[in-house]
Amino acid sequence: MNGIRVESFGEPSVLKYVKDLKKPAPSGKQILIRMKAAGVNPLETYIRSGGFPSLPKLPYTPGTDGAGIIEDIGREVTKFKKGDRVYTTNSITGTYAEYSLVEEADVHLLHKNLSFADGASLFIPYYTAFRAVFTKGMGIAGKHILVHGASGAVGIAVCQMAAAGGLIVVGTAGTDEGIDMVKKNGASHCFNHRKAGYIDQAVAITGGKGFDIIVEMLANTNLNADLSVAARKGKVLIIGCRGTVDNFDPFPMMLKEIQVEGILVFGATSKQMVECADFLYSGMEKGWLKPVIDVPYDLSDAEEAHKEVIDHKKGTNGKIVLNIK
Amino acid sequence: MNGIRVESFGEPSVLKYVKDLKKPAPSGKQILIRMKAAGVNPLETYIRSGGFPSLPKLPYTPGTDGAGIIEDIGREVTKFKKGDRVYTTNSITGTYAEYSLVEEADVHLLHKNLSFADGASLFIPYYTAFRAVFTKGMGIAGKHILVHGASGAVGIAVCQMAAAGGLIVVGTAGTDEGIDMVKKNGASHCFNHRKAGYIDQAVAITGGKGFDIIVEMLANTNLNADLSVAARKGKVLIIGCRGTVDNFDPFPMMLKEIQVEGILVFGATSKQMVECADFLYSGMEKGWLKPVIDVPYDLSDAEEAHKEVIDHKKGTNGKIVLNIK
Repeated sequence: MNGIRVESFGEPSVLKYVKDLKKPAPSGKQILIRMKAAGVNPLETYIRSGGFPSLPKLPYTPGTDGAGIIEDIGREVTKFKKGDRVYTTNSITGTYAEYSLVEEADVHLLHKNLSFADGASLFIPYYTAFRAVFTKGMGIAGKHILVHGASGAVGIAVCQMAAAGGLIVVGTAGTDEGIDMVKKNGASHCFNHRKAGYIDQAVAITGGKGFDIIVEMLANTNLNADLSVAARKGKVLIIGCRGTVDNFDPFPMMLKEIQVEGILVFGATSKQMVECADFLYSGMEKGWLKPVIDVPYDLSDAEEAHKEVIDHKKGTNGKIVLNIK
Repeated sequence: MNGIRVESFGEPSVLKYVKDLKKPAPSGKQILIRMKAAGVNPLETYIRSGGFPSLPKLPYTPGTDGAGIIEDIGREVTKFKKGDRVYTTNSITGTYAEYSLVEEADVHLLHKNLSFADGASLFIPYYTAFRAVFTKGMGIAGKHILVHGASGAVGIAVCQMAAAGGLIVVGTAGTDEGIDMVKKNGASHCFNHRKAGYIDQAVAITGGKGFDIIVEMLANTNLNADLSVAARKGKVLIIGCRGTVDNFDPFPMMLKEIQVEGILVFGATSKQMVECADFLYSGMEKGWLKPVIDVPYDLSDAEEAHKEVIDHKKGTNGKIVLNIK
């Protein structure tokens, strides 16, 4: 079958499109999916570069996120049948391929309201967002949440989910286009984080009490500002960080008993995964869950997709997805 | 009556010993205590200097911590009587004085095993330690706790309480004398944090998994090291911080889902205060609760005591207390 193979860790060019991958066969609780789309996330670039603490055995096919149609099932599979439209939250053999082998527990029904590209955009962005807002942030209706860097794939997921959970959502973005997108996806207000004074405008929305929950996409730049606008006993959930924080001042954490926590999507328990999956399915039915997706890449262009998900040189808006023909 | 009066915020010299303070009278649920000792904490120096966010109206008498004998009670007081030996966890009129007026809810019985100087050493050190280890750290038996800077008043309180709660306690201190003291107060191990490699030795005690709970007395110096030795889903509780952290790297927080939280003793609810008071009283009975106290100062030497609690120029070991004759 066709797919991406990585023979050695390194630059995006190590992502080779090959036609001789072995098509896997499911056994036990495994499911074989005919993939239609695979999601591209920064995580896969960290692994591909070899810089991530936990690495797969070489050679490997990347990807945990994808969507497609069930081609075959192992004998112990009970919840799915051939032909079901599904999305994945993990993969045994990788999702950047024509077929992917997945444990039943990592397969979820994809509602007809969502395309395969939509389904490939769910796991890392939406499950990370759920973990930040609900599992760790304890976000409940009426709380104020600041989404610091809201126009990326995870940011949009946070906005949609937090709004669906009854929170009052304030976002930030760096362009007018991004601001529009954030406002259309659940945020009551969105400020341009490139303009001076935006952080004071944001905190004014809370009536001065500060934000109960802050979801941070770029901790190295924003962490001190986050502490300044957090409410008493507020929580800062770190999803993204690309370097160290200069002159980090923990003092406001003590004065306001602020809690700062890192989010790792793989930290979720099975029960938390199911809670998230159920919430997402209800969002597909109701219509609030809708990933924002850029023009998809072909599977053979995985190298370009990996460059863009980090550098954003083409000014990509929304999620990057690989189409699998 | 005699006591300390502050007419303006500033240097330690603004602490004036005067003999014309008005002796207060209790009403309602108030209790008048003939003070025998008052505790000196860094907090009182922050307030005295005028640099704390929440300041008393001038002139004022400092102090929330103290111990003495009940002199008189308001009509609505039900739990105490004249002559009871008590300690305080707040004060309406300040504890740096011959008499202090205190709400009944802030008065607690002092067991005969403890002196008045001991009683004056309880509130800020021990209630802060309780909040870090139990309320916020969720410290339960069998967990590994690192007390980073364990030889001060709060550090000793953490060691005694955590050991009494069944945790395995590892401390650090900067002198041989400090290390001995920490080991005598509940720590299984204590390392010299001035010697290279101490942090690796500390983590080895956990069998390599890292510390479930880290109580940090000097976050500006130690926060990056704390993240490196925290267990997966570990908690870092910040009690002390004297400046900013250079090149703070939040990345380990994400990889291990570490939670970092600031501790403010005044953040406790009434219920949490009662839980702590009950635990402390059981510790007084059983004998594990015993503050380590330096040679006490006289009340008229409050200025010197305020210098020493910050600068430690005299090499004070243990808690600083004012004797009140």
